[in-house]
Amino acid sequence: MIVTLSQIREAHTRIQPHIHHTPIMHSQQVNKLLGCELFFKAENLQKVGAFKARGGCNAVFSMDAAALQKGVLTHSSGNHGAALAWAAALKGANCTVVMPENAPLVKKQAVRGYGAKVIECVASMAAREAAVAAEIQASGSTMVHPYDNETIIAGQGTAALEALGQLDQLPDIIMTPVGGGGLLSGTAIAAHALAAEVGKTIAVIGAEPQGASDAWQGFTSGQRVEQQTPATIADGLRSTLGVRNFEIIREQVNDIVLASEQGIVDAMRLVWTRLKIIIEPSAAVCVAAVMENPQLFAGKRVAIILSGGNVDLDALPW
Amino acid sequence: MIVTLSQIREAHTRIQPHIHHTPIMHSQQVNKLLGCELFFKAENLQKVGAFKARGGCNAVFSMDAAALQKGVLTHSSGNHGAALAWAAALKGANCTVVMPENAPLVKKQAVRGYGAKVIECVASMAAREAAVAAEIQASGSTMVHPYDNETIIAGQGTAALEALGQLDQLPDIIMTPVGGGGLLSGTAIAAHALAAEVGKTIAVIGAEPQGASDAWQGFTSGQRVEQQTPATIADGLRSTLGVRNFEIIREQVNDIVLASEQGIVDAMRLVWTRLKIIIEPSAAVCVAAVMENPQLFAGKRVAIILSGGNVDLDALPW
Repeated sequence: MIVTLSQIREAHTRIQPHIHHTPIMHSQQVNKLLGCELFFKAENLQKVGAFKARGGCNAVFSMDAAALQKGVLTHSSGNHGAALAWAAALKGANCTVVMPENAPLVKKQAVRGYGAKVIECVASMAAREAAVAAEIQASGSTMVHPYDNETIIAGQGTAALEALGQLDQLPDIIMTPVGGGGLLSGTAIAAHALAAEVGKTIAVIGAEPQGASDAWQGFTSGQRVEQQTPATIADGLRSTLGVRNFEIIREQVNDIVLASEQGIVDAMRLVWTRLKIIIEPSAAVCVAAVMENPQLFAGKRVAIILSGGNVDLDALPW
Repeated sequence: MIVTLSQIREAHTRIQPHIHHTPIMHSQQVNKLLGCELFFKAENLQKVGAFKARGGCNAVFSMDAAALQKGVLTHSSGNHGAALAWAAALKGANCTVVMPENAPLVKKQAVRGYGAKVIECVASMAAREAAVAAEIQASGSTMVHPYDNETIIAGQGTAALEALGQLDQLPDIIMTPVGGGGLLSGTAIAAHALAAEVGKTIAVIGAEPQGASDAWQGFTSGQRVEQQTPATIADGLRSTLGVRNFEIIREQVNDIVLASEQGIVDAMRLVWTRLKIIIEPSAAVCVAAVMENPQLFAGKRVAIILSGGNVDLDALPW
């Protein structure tokens, strides 16, 4: 096993003083509408507005002082960059985030707002890797990959650890969205191991946009998809599944279910309207998958990790 | 005293099994931006999406069986109608809500969704009163005024009772928006009496839109304004202050502060963006008042009751 429940528990102890203990939310009206009992772990209310604070904090707080002094580095156009910047700031460590020059201004501002250095590069993988290599060369910074990294996976697994501890009884299913696979792989490890401890089982289901379905394709064929051209509003899920993540997901995830673009928008509106919380499109994908595949969820108790709430209010999809 | 802390405590015991114990939320970034320490009581996450569930539930659950059998009645174009309908449904009692025919469809649907009968009338006070009188005549229903009513005031006061119990120490200030004055008057009674019990004081401040400033005018002149022509996006605050409410507010509220329309919209966006929760314009008025009157709040610990989260997502003010 690449990552174990005890590593996830250690991660939780490590990061707990710094993160929010986010609530579980529910809505009888949503349950009635969708024909199952849903428990929403509100990681949109997490630090930096996403579960990514968990992995970022665990990665930075696992480093020794000598490494921290040289700083941390990542490439990200989204929440992981902000999370790493936030965590590094807590430790007084330097952080550099390589971002494509076409990344939304609001996301560059968020990363800079936490005191990190932003290096802009043209929006290609080659340019991004060159910028990362140059920065490592210059500063000796430690690269913290957004998802294909064990401390990140262990950190993201703490959301499920926490959520299952907040519920009276184990749900039948736990769901997360899947992009690079950090959250889903950490969740699968935590959920199965916790269920086994009490002699029970739980189904772990990933939800993915039809327009970025590399995880579903790899899960179905047994062969990791190495690149894709994503076309989805769920900007947090456009990454391709990581190597470690694919391995864990193939072994431990029970199913991956797809959601349409219209379904994602409808689900986002449903959560905004009924739960009165802001979730980003990526966080709505699980809810959309439940709406569009009712036969899989009818009458079940389903925990859903709402992954984040960072949305541009001037560009809403309705 | 019209309503006492012990009545508010009784109300809390009565309604507690039916309402949500809503969280207190905070944001270091918002605190930094506004120069004070803010504690948000998230009543937008309350049943029916607003604190009005508290008063509605207290009113209905205070009635005897004989009265309940004849049903309850109110006039409302907003959250109070939904709250009364919801509370009546819990008791299996009939509920009728007189609504102006131009009330938003979504609000009529909400009231009907809880099983209440909607009587539409032309949008004038005379038509509304005639419809209410006819319904009382026909059914013997009990009229439950949205704010000028003791059980309603006691019920709304439970939000402050709960919020102050959730905080480690008494804040310097507690703020609510003011429309008809149910929430502000209940809050003033609860907060001052609770502070006195521990030998402390607390300032109770109401926030009101400049475009519907009858409470501010009455508070300043000592003379209740009997009617106004409101012009504000804060649709929950267009009512004129009630008689009982004015009396309590004049005696017990420390200040009423105004907010501009632009400030209300900016504050709403700030809360959506930073706290990741949906609040309606009426709930943003306190935050706007803090933004626009920084000298009153600098360095203070301020509890704000976020009154509700019922917003039409197709008609956002940006």
